Amino acid sequence: MSFPAAPRLIEVRRHLLKDNDLRARALRQRFRAAGVRVASFVASPGAGKTALLEALLGRLGGCRAAVLVGDLATDNDAQRLARAACGRARVRQISTGTLCHLEARMIEASLEGWPIEQLDLLLIENVGNLVCPSSFDLGEDVRCVLASVTEGEDKPLKYPTIFNSADIAAITKLDLAAAAGCDLPLLRANIDAVRPGMPVFEVSSRTGDGLGPLLAAIAG
Amino acid sequence: MSFPAAPRLIEVRRHLLKDNDLRARALRQRFRAAGVRVASFVASPGAGKTALLEALLGRLGGCRAAVLVGDLATDNDAQRLARAACGRARVRQISTGTLCHLEARMIEASLEGWPIEQLDLLLIENVGNLVCPSSFDLGEDVRCVLASVTEGEDKPLKYPTIFNSADIAAITKLDLAAAAGCDLPLLRANIDAVRPGMPVFEVSSRTGDGLGPLLAAIAG
Repeated sequence: MSFPAAPRLIEVRRHLLKDNDLRARALRQRFRAAGVRVASFVASPGAGKTALLEALLGRLGGCRAAVLVGDLATDNDAQRLARAACGRARVRQISTGTLCHLEARMIEASLEGWPIEQLDLLLIENVGNLVCPSSFDLGEDVRCVLASVTEGEDKPLKYPTIFNSADIAAITKLDLAAAAGCDLPLLRANIDAVRPGMPVFEVSSRTGDGLGPLLAAIAG
Repeated sequence: MSFPAAPRLIEVRRHLLKDNDLRARALRQRFRAAGVRVASFVASPGAGKTALLEALLGRLGGCRAAVLVGDLATDNDAQRLARAACGRARVRQISTGTLCHLEARMIEASLEGWPIEQLDLLLIENVGNLVCPSSFDLGEDVRCVLASVTEGEDKPLKYPTIFNSADIAAITKLDLAAAAGCDLPLLRANIDAVRPGMPVFEVSSRTGDGLGPLLAAIAG
């Protein structure tokens, strides 16, 4: 049995998305002009977005980076990331309240006071959600979708839009693959079925496996 | 930095929620009159909702059960659950398209043709999402929120509304707790901080640990 959204909600979503697209386009132009590369990360809650960013921040070398991190509540992730950055990257929390995704207007507002032309890389961690973030362009150059080995191999088939809206995929928690009984070739095949040819990186933030190639794809 | 939803969206959400509440109330009266107990399950994608329902379906004994399962795309879960039920329970898929949660109108429509007065227990698996399902009453008697040991101990703090809207919590994938390095007392403390006194069950669908007490709480 299939259900479309109520007509009135669709109308309002269209209006919001158009506004978001215009703002995202302006952001993208601003990032290009400032010479800053922007990558966003989308995934389920608990797929390992913050752990991945912590691990990547430790590998940035001389790259001048900043992080925006979205959550409904708490600034736990911003605190974790600030610790991982050891003062080498600016970190700012975006609290969305009851909203289940980031929007371009939040990125705009959160950049206030940051001299983005002094940055090489801006990383954006979205709210943990495999549905709604797919509809909101944030002006990023590359969108990375995470699928952890503990989530089940069928997530790309069940949440196709978020995989379709991404540019690269990271299979996270590789160190747990055996314990979780994850069929990695099947997970890769399901990603490829939804988004043929999308680059896929197998990584473990805990052991560091695979982080180099992923960082190269993100940093461009 | 905090962001409220846009005013126009709030207005439409209010309208939708009011409509949903009226439908949910009618559903609840109908379920009571028919003598059917209704439990719903909410969690992140990949937290183990379907695996838990598979395991519970195998333990129902003479209980006459049915399952409604929501997903954006595919009927993979309905197929899995139908196999697990071995013909002892009716299973029906609800495809939400782009919608990230179930609504009462979908439950209403999906019950068409089912003689619910012949059921003892109706199980509803929501779309994998820790945000929006919290706002939509489905007429259930008990809402069970799942938190898997692989997701990180802070999920209750970061997604408080879904834990607040639940009646019981199940900590899933207990067999992976050591491999994932999960601090179970901390996870329990975080659940209790958000929803003091909520019953919490530690379970493994793989080994069967803890399923008996959880099933007793669900079946009422």
